Parts: sequence; structure tokens; C-alpha cells
Amino acid sequence: MKAVQVVGYHRDLELTDVAMPEITGPYDVLVRIGGAGVCRTDIHILEGQWAEKSGVTLPYTIGHENAGWVHAVGSAVTNVAEGDKVIVHPLVTCGLCRACRSGDDVHCQQSQFPGIDTHGGYAEYLRTSARSVVKLDDSLEPADVAALADAGLTAYHAVAKAAARLRPGDRCVLIGAGGLGHIGIQVLKALTAAELVVVDRNPDAVELARSIGADHGVVADGTHAEQVLELTGGHGAEVVLDFVGEGGSTRDGLRMVRRAGDYHVIGYGENVDVATIDLISAEVNIIGNLVGSYNDLRELMVLAAQGHVRLHTTTYPMEKFQDAIDDLAAGRIRGRAILTP
Amino acid sequence: MKAVQVVGYHRDLELTDVAMPEITGPYDVLVRIGGAGVCRTDIHILEGQWAEKSGVTLPYTIGHENAGWVHAVGSAVTNVAEGDKVIVHPLVTCGLCRACRSGDDVHCQQSQFPGIDTHGGYAEYLRTSARSVVKLDDSLEPADVAALADAGLTAYHAVAKAAARLRPGDRCVLIGAGGLGHIGIQVLKALTAAELVVVDRNPDAVELARSIGADHGVVADGTHAEQVLELTGGHGAEVVLDFVGEGGSTRDGLRMVRRAGDYHVIGYGENVDVATIDLISAEVNIIGNLVGSYNDLRELMVLAAQGHVRLHTTTYPMEKFQDAIDDLAAGRIRGRAILTP
Amino acid sequence: MKAVQVVGYHRDLELTDVAMPEITGPYDVLVRIGGAGVCRTDIHILEGQWAEKSGVTLPYTIGHENAGWVHAVGSAVTNVAEGDKVIVHPLVTCGLCRACRSGDDVHCQQSQFPGIDTHGGYAEYLRTSARSVVKLDDSLEPADVAALADAGLTAYHAVAKAAARLRPGDRCVLIGAGGLGHIGIQVLKALTAAELVVVDRNPDAVELARSIGADHGVVADGTHAEQVLELTGGHGAEVVLDFVGEGGSTRDGLRMVRRAGDYHVIGYGENVDVATIDLISAEVNIIGNLVGSYNDLRELMVLAAQGHVRLHTTTYPMEKFQDAIDDLAAGRIRGRAILTP
Amino acid sequence: MKAVQVVGYHRDLELTDVAMPEITGPYDVLVRIGGAGVCRTDIHILEGQWAEKSGVTLPYTIGHENAGWVHAVGSAVTNVAEGDKVIVHPLVTCGLCRACRSGDDVHCQQSQFPGIDTHGGYAEYLRTSARSVVKLDDSLEPADVAALADAGLTAYHAVAKAAARLRPGDRCVLIGAGGLGHIGIQVLKALTAAELVVVDRNPDAVELARSIGADHGVVADGTHAEQVLELTGGHGAEVVLDFVGEGGSTRDGLRMVRRAGDYHVIGYGENVDVATIDLISAEVNIIGNLVGSYNDLRELMVLAAQGHVRLHTTTYPMEKFQDAIDDLAAGRIRGRAILTP
Repeated sequence: MKAVQVVGYHRDLELTDVAMPEITGPYDVLVRIGGAGVCRTDIHILEGQWAEKSGVTLPYTIGHENAGWVHAVGSAVTNVAEGDKVIVHPLVTCGLCRACRSGDDVHCQQSQFPGIDTHGGYAEYLRTSARSVVKLDDSLEPADVAALADAGLTAYHAVAKAAARLRPGDRCVLIGAGGLGHIGIQVLKALTAAELVVVDRNPDAVELARSIGADHGVVADGTHAEQVLELTGGHGAEVVLDFVGEGGSTRDGLRMVRRAGDYHVIGYGENVDVATIDLISAEVNIIGNLVGSYNDLRELMVLAAQGHVRLHTTTYPMEKFQDAIDDLAAGRIRGRAILTP
Repeated sequence: MKAVQVVGYHRDLELTDVAMPEITGPYDVLVRIGGAGVCRTDIHILEGQWAEKSGVTLPYTIGHENAGWVHAVGSAVTNVAEGDKVIVHPLVTCGLCRACRSGDDVHCQQSQFPGIDTHGGYAEYLRTSARSVVKLDDSLEPADVAALADAGLTAYHAVAKAAARLRPGDRCVLIGAGGLGHIGIQVLKALTAAELVVVDRNPDAVELARSIGADHGVVADGTHAEQVLELTGGHGAEVVLDFVGEGGSTRDGLRMVRRAGDYHVIGYGENVDVATIDLISAEVNIIGNLVGSYNDLRELMVLAAQGHVRLHTTTYPMEKFQDAIDDLAAGRIRGRAILTP
Repeated sequence: MKAVQVVGYHRDLELTDVAMPEITGPYDVLVRIGGAGVCRTDIHILEGQWAEKSGVTLPYTIGHENAGWVHAVGSAVTNVAEGDKVIVHPLVTCGLCRACRSGDDVHCQQSQFPGIDTHGGYAEYLRTSARSVVKLDDSLEPADVAALADAGLTAYHAVAKAAARLRPGDRCVLIGAGGLGHIGIQVLKALTAAELVVVDRNPDAVELARSIGADHGVVADGTHAEQVLELTGGHGAEVVLDFVGEGGSTRDGLRMVRRAGDYHVIGYGENVDVATIDLISAEVNIIGNLVGSYNDLRELMVLAAQGHVRLHTTTYPMEKFQDAIDDLAAGRIRGRAILTP
Repeated sequence: MKAVQVVGYHRDLELTDVAMPEITGPYDVLVRIGGAGVCRTDIHILEGQWAEKSGVTLPYTIGHENAGWVHAVGSAVTNVAEGDKVIVHPLVTCGLCRACRSGDDVHCQQSQFPGIDTHGGYAEYLRTSARSVVKLDDSLEPADVAALADAGLTAYHAVAKAAARLRPGDRCVLIGAGGLGHIGIQVLKALTAAELVVVDRNPDAVELARSIGADHGVVADGTHAEQVLELTGGHGAEVVLDFVGEGGSTRDGLRMVRRAGDYHVIGYGENVDVATIDLISAEVNIIGNLVGSYNDLRELMVLAAQGHVRLHTTTYPMEKFQDAIDDLAAGRIRGRAILTP
């Protein structure tokens, strides 16, 4: 089959012919790819940033945001059958460790991450696990939702955690209305009646955020923390969701949090550097967020089927993978680039 | 009446005669002091560290850990009566703001803090509020529990928050087995079956911790983070309670936390400085902790009456206040110094 | 001032002249009534059903769903001032008992209930407490929201409790799309993305429910439990909210609950009669619901100001009180009848 | 191998020779039985009470409380290995349905129940699943803990749910200090500082309960509900755990619950029959409880290894199975009867 592979760091990806993956374990599931999201992490992989961490052996097939149709299943698979339309959770988890047994599979003690540390989905077929596939509603198409498998899932996970404490009248600040933030806004409107303040450097992104439900938009111009404090009666917001995590957003984000509030880290890059006396005198929490669980992905697919969450995508046939990468690197993509076989 | 007052910064306290406080509001309560805890914060006040923050006018009576007997009550007070034995919550809160209406009175929008920003309890009588007094069980004496009003209450609050997630088999690390940590250990043993690892620089403190229920003791000698990781199967603990917050304990504490775990800041001094990628990849939370609520104090008094929490105290007659301060500054006090009128 | 009073059981109410209420306690608040909801409970009071339970002395002023403007305040009131537009929580609570200190003021150990056990709001002025008044947004008018003070608040309280467990993809059944149920539907749509099934005997009510957001409507015709099971894949719903509580709805409601689900009792009348083996083998919960807390009322007013919750009302001048009662008794009122002075 | 089988209803069990179970699926685990608890349910099975519900085909091997050593494992098993000492969760669950993916495996949509609907553990070997085995601490022996696999697990599950809301100063009533109740008392003391009132008809059971930590003991003599109300200041308890569920205990239990409290159904037999007005006016919850999850069993084994939970057992060699059944039926067993191969 055709696959796009990493053949070396600081080199372009290559389209090549590789053997089809096969069912080898009882819970294996082969998915015929319908769409694979192109993610900034893919560029970081090519830059070698993940080489040591993932320990992957080159060449290997890249692509960690996948959706398609079940092509074959292992002997013990009962939850999907050939032909089912599915989205693929980014992790393959063991199902037996304490985390997996608690519904918290993202913290599985022996997970694999196809597209990062083993073969991924820039290909005609992907091998994953019965534990990783979520059936799609008839109304959803793989290529349309593939990018929700990782980027969207991360946004959903953080917002759903935050939503559990947001009551009507509470304020939520969302920093960074890009791809993930865009999903975050839609999820927040679906799950809460909190008042939503969106902060972004890009006035167009702020405008777009307002058009999909943000109650207030603030352009990050250096006075944004003050503006947010003013919008919240001087007290700050019960929840701040930081989808940026660099360029000073952690300092600004912490300033915008109300006493007893939560500052969520989702985007990353810089350090959080905060005086312990500030954390205790305001009794503020700093909440880390990773990608969502299998159940989170199932819930996100419900919101997608209900029309609560929509993602703008641009599709590229698989052989045009370099165009997709180049367009992403150059900032020419609105929403998300999707490769289709 | 007699009172010990701050008459200037960088000067000794002075014992003087002042007017008795009076009932002026409907919810006022006058307490005849039975014991007032001497706290390191009192020394910081004399050093001027709180001058700007509190905005207090000198001279004023110091002392924020108080217990005694109700001497008089305002017209609307129904929960206590003259003669009742009480411990005094350190804050006087409004009862009407959102925080007060949610049981979260510590975050009251217009609270007072007797001993810090108004007259406190190094005196024969203290004016506080009906909202701040907790009746004591017959078995408890004011001088014995006074220091639980602030130091103990802070430890209780943090541990009770942490206990909500600690299941049998989970591990909890407690850094700093001094006054607060000592209470923390006792509370943790009363509220959970978690496995408890205590870390302290002082081998005697570690030994004492083990004698009151710590499952493991680790002397902080530079290898303590590694030792804790080893004790927890290389994974770290579900919860780390840091009662130190300086001298590198925030860095060490964060290293000791398991994926999806909570690092609680209680002691303070240095900055938390952590890479956002570390927070998100392990999905760790940093939890701020302030003093406990009125309900927390009520619960702590239950634990004290049940014998679950005991505090070692050394009493000084009020006129010996300078000895108490000197002994505290010189590290000569085991447990807590208490002034008695 | 004018007031409508209960002068005897099994007799009509009477409009009469009574003395203005006065400020007597520090937390008292006098409210100039802008609207008072007419409730079926008022009819039950006249039938004598509450005589023994309330212990009220006749004559007294009826009316427990009130909103208006602050006319005067006691010496210790800081949260409202003369002229403020407010809705009145139905209970006057002590603020000092454990329930009040936990934000759970509905379970106050010494509350009063104006309109039930003391003078209520079918009058020009009502005496209540600073702890009972919620300021209204500029966009809301007292006569429009008065009926949210009790009927709406009960619906909000139950739905908000249920919403805490409803995840996308979960199903919620709402039995009884009358006044409370109507509010309940709106609140559920604002707070969750759960799939909503509404059951009512009245096809028009079902139709209306669908028009305001119910995903499925079922006319209660004897096959409704089966229909709900079919709509939920044979499993039943995670949550059933029963706003009826009589005529067999408790039996039907429990049949519609999924394993590990919650059946909420809001309406009342008949007994719940269920085999313990059914409760344990399906591990189902039966959840009682009373009126909401002060914080609940504040949150409901946020939803009203945001336009999430709207109530259809018919206003009657106070002297036409008998018409309102008669219309209510005869089922001629759509939405809620409101008396205006 | 030897096995004790049900060969017909209303007939005695028979010891016979049957084929060894074999590994047929990738997650299968064969356990060499070290102890199998004899449970009243076994007697009910012989009476035919489960015939229709379980749909089991006779003859089959009975026994659903099992512990022993791993004898063989399927190809995909990674969490245990041959020779491991394990206790066996009573259910074999699918691992793929929503309940299993949420840590709530007891509500698995396609579970099996060895000893009830397929071959159980009154035998030399049992086939179960990798998802059902919990490794035992070195200090625990299979025959000593086998009865915790079902009876103990049910008690643990209910108490752990209740413990989540019990704060110091809260009261918990436990009705029925028999086998399950006895475990329940020990778990409650390990997990909470709540004040514990134990109610039982048998004065000896009450005495025993007090000796292992109950703060108050009440002999059920018709005045017990009044006695409990008196012990709780007239208010009732925050939590009532009913391990009886027949003979009027549901009515009595509900009387003992405080406003906003929880009544837990664990034992069963009679109907709960309660007026909806009583549920709503006191806002009380009725909480169903089934056996605990896999994670619950893991936690209970931690408590057992810590010495918090101990169970009195009487062992019988497997061939003396009839004596064990007879002794149980005649009430001659203190604690729990265990068959050992």
C-alpha cells in the first residue's frame, strides 16, 4: 500500500510502497484511512524534536489524527465490525493497568502512539486497537472529523474538565482562538452557560470567536490582562483556559484568574514561573491538560453529530502531502489540512 | 484591659492598658481569651512585612490564633451565648457575598483579619463575629486548641482537599513535618487509608512522623526525590503536600508527583518554576491552599475532640510575651507557644 | 397598605388594609412588590392542607413567589440598597447553622417561609431578609420573573443537580412538561448537551416541548415507558426527571432509568413503591429535590438575563386576585398568573 | 479435576470429576483455587431462585467467591503470570462497552458471572479473565480473603460511596452487623472520621460492632429508630447504610436519615414504600448498591493487607462441602465458610 514516511530528520517526507499492516493480536483493528489530519507536531517530528523521546526507528509512517473504515478485526474484537465508519483515538492502550481500568486510559502505563512511535495514518491502512476506535454517526464523514482525533480531543478534554465547575454567571477566559481554541469555544458553549471572554493577538480570530458565541473578545495588545480584569469586575475569571502557553501567556493567564479559580495549561512552550505566596494567598490552581480519553472522544463525536462542533478543513490527496506540509508551515491553512488516500 | 500591642515596626511589642472592646454590631461577639497562639507571622509583622499589605494603624493588638469564652453577644446572635467555650476562626466575614454564600468564606470579598489588620487576641478580650466562633466540646480547653485556629486550620484544609481523591493504595508525600505538617499527618491518618511518606531535613522530625503514623520517613539529604520515586515504584505519588515551599522543595515536590497527580502548595517562599510541557505531558495539577473555612474549623474541632489531632503546646502568661517571641525566634519551642491572660 | 389575606380555610381570600411591615432586625429588607406569582400551593393553603404543618395564625397575607424593589433596609444590610430591583428567595434563613454555612440554606434549621408560615407577597410590601434578595439584571422586570422565585427555582435546582452527571450522549427523560417542566427543559438545554426526551399526557405540551429544544416527544398513553426504552436502545436513560410524581409516574419513571442511573422526584403525590432487589440489581438512585438555594436563584437569574429561560405570564391587578385563583383552578392559565399591585 | 456441582434444583450438590477448564481466549486466566467462599446465594441457587434469571444449564460448578494461584494464561495476558497469588472479581467483563471504559465494569453490557451463570470455583481450577484477577499482597492467603471477593466487595463498594460525603462530625448509621455489615464497619473506620451508630437485632452483634470501632450500638427492639434520632440530636444521620433491607428496615432506615441525607440500600428483600412528599420535603436520596468494581476490589485488598479489614473464616476441605452448606443453613457459622481443595 501507499504510505508517507519519515525517512530521516531534517529531510522531506517520502511517499512509498510498504506492506499492508496485518492483524497479529486478538484486539487488533485495521482501519482503511478516510482522512488523516496534518498537524504541527508532524513538522516538529521532521525537525527531530521527537526523535529521542519517541525512540522510533526510521523509516516509519507518520500521521496521528485518523479516521476511516474498519477493514479487518482480530479474533477478540466485538465492538466494531468490517465496514464500520470510525475515528481513531491517538493512543493504543493496554486495558489492564490501573489508569485504563479507571477510564483514564491516557495515562496507560504501556501505551503506543501510532504516527509518533509506531506506524501512523498517512497511509491507506492503519493498525490500531479495538480499544481505540469510536464508531461514527451516519451523518459524519471520516475526512471531516479526522482532525478532531487529537487537536479537537485535547480541546474537548480541557473544556469538559473546566465545565464541571462553571456555573451560570461564572466567567471563562480562553486565550488563543486558533485551531484548538476554536473547538474549545464551541464545546464550552455546548456544555455551559458561562460568560466567555476570548483573547487572541489576531483581531480576525477574535472576530470569528465572537461570531461563534464568545460573549467578549479582547485583542492581545499588552493591555489584555487589564481588559479582562475590567470585564470581570476587577476580580478575574473563575477559569482561564490557556491554549497558547508561550510568549507571556502564562503570566497573563494567571493574572486573569479569580481567587479560588483555575488556570488551565493546554498550549505549551514557556515556563510557568509564579510566586508560591501568590498561589496560596489567592488559592489558585494550575491545571495541566493532556489529550482526552477514549470516552472523551466518544463524547466529542456526539457533539459533532449534534452539530455543536464543526471544523473547517482543506483536503489534499495523499500524494500532495508536501503541499499540505508547506501550506501548514507557511500559515496558509484555515482550520485543518487533511490528507485523503 | 491588658493587651500586647505593636507600637512600631522593628521594635518590641508592648504590654499596655487599653479600653475593652464593645459590642457595636448585631453580630458582634466578645470573647474572653483563654489562649492565643504565638505564630511566626507575628514576628514577620514586627519586621514590617505586613505593614503595607494590611494597612493597619499602629498601635494595635496582635494575635490571630485565639480561643476562649463568650463574654457578650450582639442583638442578632443566636448560635452562641455568654459562657460558651469557643475557638475563633481567624477571619471575620460578611456572610452575604457569593463566596460566603457558598461555604467558601475564606474568599469573602470584605473580610477582616483580627491580629493582622485590626485588634487581635494577645489581650484579655477580643471582638469577633457570630460567624467566626465555633463551640468547643467539653473535653477541649481553649489554651490547648488555640493554635489550631490558624496553623492547624491551614493544614486541615489542604489535607481534607487532598483526601477527597486519595483511595486505598494511593500514596501521599508530605514535605515538612514541622508544626503544620505534624497536624497534617494526623488529619491524613484520620481521613484516609493512603500510604504516607514524610520528608523532612530533620531526622528527629522524620522519626516523630513515623511514630504518629507515617508509613515511610525520608530525610531530605539531596537524594530524597529519588528515594520517594523508589518508594512509589518509580511512578511518584498521587498527592504531594508541600508544607515548606522554599529551599528547592517546589522543584523536588513536582518531581515526586505521579502522572495525573496533585502537588499542593501550602508553605511558601520561593517561586514555582516549571516547564508547561512538563505540566501537560504528565497532566499534573498545582493546587494552592489558604487557611480553612469556618466549616473546616468545625470539622477540625471534631477531630480534636475525638483525639485524632493533638498539638504539643507551651504556655506563657501574657506578661511573658517577650519570652514566647524570643523562644520562637530562637527555635526553642516544640509544638506551639500559647499566651494565657 | 393593601394585602390579600387568608381569613379562614375553605373560604375565599380577602383584600384588606393592613399595617405596613417594618424593619425590626438588622438584616431585614422591605420589598415593594412588583409581581407575585399565583401558585397551586395557594389553593392548597385555602383548602387547609398546610394549616397544621405551617402553624400559621389567621389572618395572614399569602404569596410566596415575589419580586420587586428594595424599599428599606436594616442597619446591617450591605448587599442591596433602596431602589434595587430584586427577586425574593422564598425562604428567610438564619445564616449561622451548618446548612446555611455550607451554601445549602434550603435546609436551614430555623427558616421562615413568607406566604406560608408568615406574611407573604400578595401585598404592596413584603418583609424579607438581606440573605433572601437577589439583584436583577437591568433587562429583567419583577413581574416577569416573580414566578421563577419558587416554581422556576425548584426546576432549576433539580436540573442543575442532574446536569452535573450528564455527558454528551447521555439521555435525560423529563416527565411532565407543565410550568416547572417547561423551565426544566430550558435549563437542561442551557447546561448540557444531553439528548432530551419529554413525556407528557398532553400532546400540545409535548409539541411545545419539542419547539423549545426537546429531541424527542412522547405522549403518555400507557405505552410511554416502552417508547422511552425503545428511544434509548432498550437501556433507559441516565437521568429521569419526574415533575409529576402521581398517577403512576413514579413506577413509569423508574422503568425508564438505565442501570446506574438517577430517578429524580420533583413532583409529588403518590408513593414510590419499588422492590429493593430492583434498586440494587440495577444500582439505581432515587433523588429527592426541594426548592433551590440562594445561589441557585442567582444562577437562574443569570440564565433569565441571558435569555436562556423565559416564562409565559398573565398579569392581574391585585384586586382581581379572585380571577387569578379561579383561572388557575379552572386550568385557564397558560404559563403563570402574576398579581401586580 | 474435582468439582462440586449443581445437578438439579431442590437436590444436594454433588462432588464429581470434570474436565479441567482450558484457555480458549486470549484474555483467559486459569486459577488454581485456594479458597472458595460459601454464600447464602449458593443455597438460593439450589432452591431454584436463580434458575430462570441465570439461564444456566445443569450440571454446572457452583462458587462465586474465589481466590488462588494463576495456573495458566491466554496469549494476551500481561498483568499476571503463572504462580501469582490472586483474588478473583466475581464478574468477567468485556472491557469494551461504555461502562467498562468508565471504570464501572459492574455495569458491563455483556458480563458473565462464574458460579451463577457459568462454571464457578467449588473446584480445583476456575477459568476467569485477566480483567478479573487482582494480585494479592504477600501477607494475604487465598483462603483467608476469598470471601471478600463478593460479600466483602459489596460492603466496600457501598461504604466507599458513602465515605465520599462523610465529613468529621457527620453521623453514619449502619443497620445489620452481620457478615457484610462487619466488613462495612471496618471499612468505614478506615476511610472516615464519621461517628458510627450500629443497629442490629442481635445484642452480641452490637457488642462485637462496638469492639471493632462503632461509636454507638443500638439493639433493634422497635424503639431503635427513636434511639438513633436521639443519638443524632433529633435530626437523623447524614448517611444510613442498610445491610438488611427486609423486616421493616427500609421504613426504619428512612426515618433515621437527616434532611439532605442518603439512605443506602445494600441488603434486599422487601419494598421501599415511601411518600414522594417525604422524599422531596426532606430532599433525601435512596441509593442502590451492587457489588463493587475491579478497582474497588483492588482497594479492598489494600485495606486487607494493611490490616484494616479482617474476616473470620472456617475452612472445610472441598469434600466436606455438604457440612459447610448445612452449617451455613443452620446458622452455625461465625464469619464465613471457605472450601479448600
